[in-house]
Amino acid sequence: MYDLLEKANTPDGLKELAKSDLPKLADQMRQFIIETVAGRTGGHLGSGLGTVELTIALHYFYNLLNHDSVVFDVGHQCYPHKLLTGRRERFGTLRQYKGISGFPDPKESPFDLVKTGHGGTSLSTALGIAVANKRQGFADRTSIAVIGDGALQEGQALEALNHGGDMRDLKYVIVLNDNEHGIGPATGALANYFSKFRTSQAYTSAKKDIKKMLKMLDDSAGSFGRAVHDVLDHVKAGLHGLMPATHPGVLFEELGYFYYGPIDGHDIEQMLEAFENIQRIPKPVVLHVMTKKGKGFNNDEPDHYAYHAAKTHSKLTAHLPKEFKLASGPAYTDVFVEKTFELIEKDEKVIAITAAMLQGTGLEKVQQKHPDRVYDVGMAEQHAVGFAQGLKLGGLKPICAVYSTFMQRSVDQLFQELALIKTPVLMALDRAGLVGPDGATHNGVFDIAYLSMLPNTVLMAPRDATELKDMMEFGLELSLPAAVRFPRTKAPALDKELPHDQPLELGKAEVLREGDDGVVIAYGSMVYHALEAADLIEERHNKKLTIVNARFAKPFDESLFAKLIEKHPHVFTVEEHVRRGGFGSIVLEFANRARLESGKIEVLAIDDRFVDHGARVEVLQEVGLDPEGIAASIERRLGLKGSGSESGSTRNVSAGSSVS
Amino acid sequence: MYDLLEKANTPDGLKELAKSDLPKLADQMRQFIIETVAGRTGGHLGSGLGTVELTIALHYFYNLLNHDSVVFDVGHQCYPHKLLTGRRERFGTLRQYKGISGFPDPKESPFDLVKTGHGGTSLSTALGIAVANKRQGFADRTSIAVIGDGALQEGQALEALNHGGDMRDLKYVIVLNDNEHGIGPATGALANYFSKFRTSQAYTSAKKDIKKMLKMLDDSAGSFGRAVHDVLDHVKAGLHGLMPATHPGVLFEELGYFYYGPIDGHDIEQMLEAFENIQRIPKPVVLHVMTKKGKGFNNDEPDHYAYHAAKTHSKLTAHLPKEFKLASGPAYTDVFVEKTFELIEKDEKVIAITAAMLQGTGLEKVQQKHPDRVYDVGMAEQHAVGFAQGLKLGGLKPICAVYSTFMQRSVDQLFQELALIKTPVLMALDRAGLVGPDGATHNGVFDIAYLSMLPNTVLMAPRDATELKDMMEFGLELSLPAAVRFPRTKAPALDKELPHDQPLELGKAEVLREGDDGVVIAYGSMVYHALEAADLIEERHNKKLTIVNARFAKPFDESLFAKLIEKHPHVFTVEEHVRRGGFGSIVLEFANRARLESGKIEVLAIDDRFVDHGARVEVLQEVGLDPEGIAASIERRLGLKGSGSESGSTRNVSAGSSVS
Repeated sequence: MYDLLEKANTPDGLKELAKSDLPKLADQMRQFIIETVAGRTGGHLGSGLGTVELTIALHYFYNLLNHDSVVFDVGHQCYPHKLLTGRRERFGTLRQYKGISGFPDPKESPFDLVKTGHGGTSLSTALGIAVANKRQGFADRTSIAVIGDGALQEGQALEALNHGGDMRDLKYVIVLNDNEHGIGPATGALANYFSKFRTSQAYTSAKKDIKKMLKMLDDSAGSFGRAVHDVLDHVKAGLHGLMPATHPGVLFEELGYFYYGPIDGHDIEQMLEAFENIQRIPKPVVLHVMTKKGKGFNNDEPDHYAYHAAKTHSKLTAHLPKEFKLASGPAYTDVFVEKTFELIEKDEKVIAITAAMLQGTGLEKVQQKHPDRVYDVGMAEQHAVGFAQGLKLGGLKPICAVYSTFMQRSVDQLFQELALIKTPVLMALDRAGLVGPDGATHNGVFDIAYLSMLPNTVLMAPRDATELKDMMEFGLELSLPAAVRFPRTKAPALDKELPHDQPLELGKAEVLREGDDGVVIAYGSMVYHALEAADLIEERHNKKLTIVNARFAKPFDESLFAKLIEKHPHVFTVEEHVRRGGFGSIVLEFANRARLESGKIEVLAIDDRFVDHGARVEVLQEVGLDPEGIAASIERRLGLKGSGSESGSTRNVSAGSSVS
Repeated sequence: MYDLLEKANTPDGLKELAKSDLPKLADQMRQFIIETVAGRTGGHLGSGLGTVELTIALHYFYNLLNHDSVVFDVGHQCYPHKLLTGRRERFGTLRQYKGISGFPDPKESPFDLVKTGHGGTSLSTALGIAVANKRQGFADRTSIAVIGDGALQEGQALEALNHGGDMRDLKYVIVLNDNEHGIGPATGALANYFSKFRTSQAYTSAKKDIKKMLKMLDDSAGSFGRAVHDVLDHVKAGLHGLMPATHPGVLFEELGYFYYGPIDGHDIEQMLEAFENIQRIPKPVVLHVMTKKGKGFNNDEPDHYAYHAAKTHSKLTAHLPKEFKLASGPAYTDVFVEKTFELIEKDEKVIAITAAMLQGTGLEKVQQKHPDRVYDVGMAEQHAVGFAQGLKLGGLKPICAVYSTFMQRSVDQLFQELALIKTPVLMALDRAGLVGPDGATHNGVFDIAYLSMLPNTVLMAPRDATELKDMMEFGLELSLPAAVRFPRTKAPALDKELPHDQPLELGKAEVLREGDDGVVIAYGSMVYHALEAADLIEERHNKKLTIVNARFAKPFDESLFAKLIEKHPHVFTVEEHVRRGGFGSIVLEFANRARLESGKIEVLAIDDRFVDHGARVEVLQEVGLDPEGIAASIERRLGLKGSGSESGSTRNVSAGSSVS
């Protein structure tokens, strides 16, 4: 059934196949991916299905090991690439703990030069490689970036497009994988630009023009150098005349690229021909390829997001324990959506913003009911924050919903547009903490550090669904920029939430339970974990711990924390964030300034390393932030004999940095 | 002599002038700015001189207080704006301590909506304001962004351009101030695009077309709505036909903007007419204005950088003390340049990268001699890091020179492109610490925090010129990404440098002087300050301190620091960085993990607030990081009676956060 796929286990094997076998290989690959991803592992289904033929053509034509190179933007379209580079047999472990990653990863294969996951980076990297090739005399090596029309909206991609258009005599190919939408439907002027073109007649007439153009190229003497440029300019002018309004390449040509296309990204022969043709173009090329996201899966009723990210089959996760006992409430994302509905319906000044994450943030639902109250700015996190600043200065109340990991793109805007002049914008940082299957590129474990360094910024994290809602309402009324972080998981069961009898007050924490044997100050997602850990300690050792819900990391509850540190023999801070610069670090700095005994404090956080993919509960265990792991740390510190549970207690506790 | 300027002290006063007086007002403003900036205060001269007429026209036509609004991108072209908004009399205090800022600042005037300094942000902010105006029914308010052709290359600006092109029925005007170069000569495809156009005949013929176009607009029934769109499309097609290759607006029109121009940015009448005309365009407008940077100053021999930033006249700084006694060596920037020359000439794989800072980083000199070894990627810090990754993956050795404050734009690339897969790129962070006259937007006081949170990253800072050179050589050979930070100041006198007899070793510090009464662990720029403070303490109190040059913040010298903390009664860390997440915070985290007595540690750093402009020595005094200030902190801690010097000792020492 997968005979061709088995032969094409490596590019060398692939190259032994006849050209005429390749479409059948594509069918097998598509079938294999659907079976594995939709049937078992979950993952980014649509992108990979759209690039099957493109990937085959790339590996069939180029030599992508130590010679030519390809960088897949965002990287979630790399499944076909993994199948053709020796990872077919491990493909069933996709995105699972200790299995292969859902993104390219140099740790897995020398065919993966980089690890991607955040979008818009491929043009920069591939341009750098192309320049390095040229400088070192590797004139026959081609550097390729494969980028979707959605990711091309990223500021970095546009910066690189600008820089690359200035270059000459490079083998640098941008494969524009135009599938009509990135993660969601693409927005913005570029999207309109492409869409206008798609519905026009230019698509077919352009094909003829390519032939004419290449004919002229062949007729020109020598084929390279100045003569070619002249011919190309001539051809370009002709093309302009032919299709003044809809010629799709104008934009790229104006920026200095040789535009080739559009061609059918599911027609392998056509792509091989294109690769052959562009080999002789002595400047950066944009090869425009039309593909269908999710091709072969279900073309009747397109659900972009289902294509984008299929869920893990329940049988793969059935054996996993709950993250914590009460983890059976609504997903935090849904709670965010529910509250956003309420805020928007209550106050017409409230506006929600997302950066190409309508589905991921859940704002799609809000947009469906209130289309004019949600702005999707496209993959443009920097602009999202600046745009929010403008909305606020203009008198509105923006909620800017960006994943914690993607907000890393906006640190400078958080600095200048928000913190510096105290622009009150509410930032909703979803996926803060360990995200699970998406792994290291998507873990949101740096936001406390990069936000708390900025003056005038309020940082908070809720313990449960009700508190998330309270914090959103509270944050929206502050006179300072504020961020609320929440994890990619389920909130505690609503009917088991601890009482909410202590209203939110800026910089004030909440004592949830009192005991004399130590105190655990937990931040956000770790509060119920800490409560459960305290139960374990009490059951096993009859020791009682005070449990505090910190609520705020900045400003934080200095007077309460001072009292707690003075009173208790042991103080633990717990957070779902790296140790360096995180919540515990804030508490340590405070204890030091206030001349409190910081020696009693132990910071439970993620060590100085990147955490790979797996189920969220598995990676939480790995870093010792599941309830058992927290209990084990407390037992160690208190000199208590642990339960012997393997979870957490076997963790390698290193005080050192990972850098040496 | 400045009669008109005095009348035009506010926009209301300006509006009382006759249109025919405006060119004379422009002359007076230009004269006044040159006199003040070139003659005394120093500052960004060229940008402001280029926008005198534009600013007059904006204030003459629009009502920029609580009605229309303007956001100046980068902000250094705001001097004419300051003169027209009540700040003429204070203009002589420009960029001086407690004087007015060199950038827009809401603290100074309600006409300044935002504080800028980092480029490429105005389009986002102004678009947000335009959308807010529209949503609230303020149909007669226009939101304007003034952006240079250099800043338009910033990723955020391009993201916003993409988003805005999608909008309709907004009063949103992008004034493209096309002065042929941003801070340095512009690079990249957009620059070529503009330059190609400038040299063509299209400039003049376009003027005629505007008239024709507007005539058609007037002839169309109703002027607004669908009819207008149709007419515009028609006109656009006509323009395409007229000028297929060089029509400058194609790019913007393809993105959905109404392109108007180019017009002469020194012709006030023409600009007023343009503002009048674009009032009726029901979609985002790009108004292309041609100006001459530094106009009126010295047009014979253009020195872009002298135009860009004139130096402070020596008489204004004569009264200021030295930053520290030995501060008479070469500027760190020059040392960086000297070493870059050496590295580039020694190893052909070494490449230097800058993001529109050829002059500021000093790489211009390297480029002049080795034009093919320096890449200026334009105002595109994100791409700079991604491009560097590509160069490295392609086999070269990139040095990426970006100011500490601008590297905030690249946090996500430092994360994904460098730290995540350990791509060894050397980052040279110039202007790390307090920069002085440029103030809060330019202070590089967050880099230790945002870099140290990332695993696999090496952070170092040299004590003097020789060590900077050593660290560059060392960092370039590491197998990890590495950053070396150095301040905007002079290094210690070369002949007074302490001996360099302890070679660099990853993560190892250097003990410079031993004493038993305490230890000061200083990072980078603070080492000689600490030595001088130790001298003061010894002179005044006969107490001897150990002085340590930390060299590395990550990985750091755990074993030495542990010994020092154990041995000494008092431990001080000193750094030119915010306290939150900085070097001292790293030491505190370590002391806590290693169960050392952190109570002895005192962190000398910048409190949780933004530091405004002034001479560097003045702001160092303000934050207590001059040698006297450091000595005063030590005296306080050791219970010694201070010298009574006002410097440092009167500083408000607050343990709290500034957020409450």
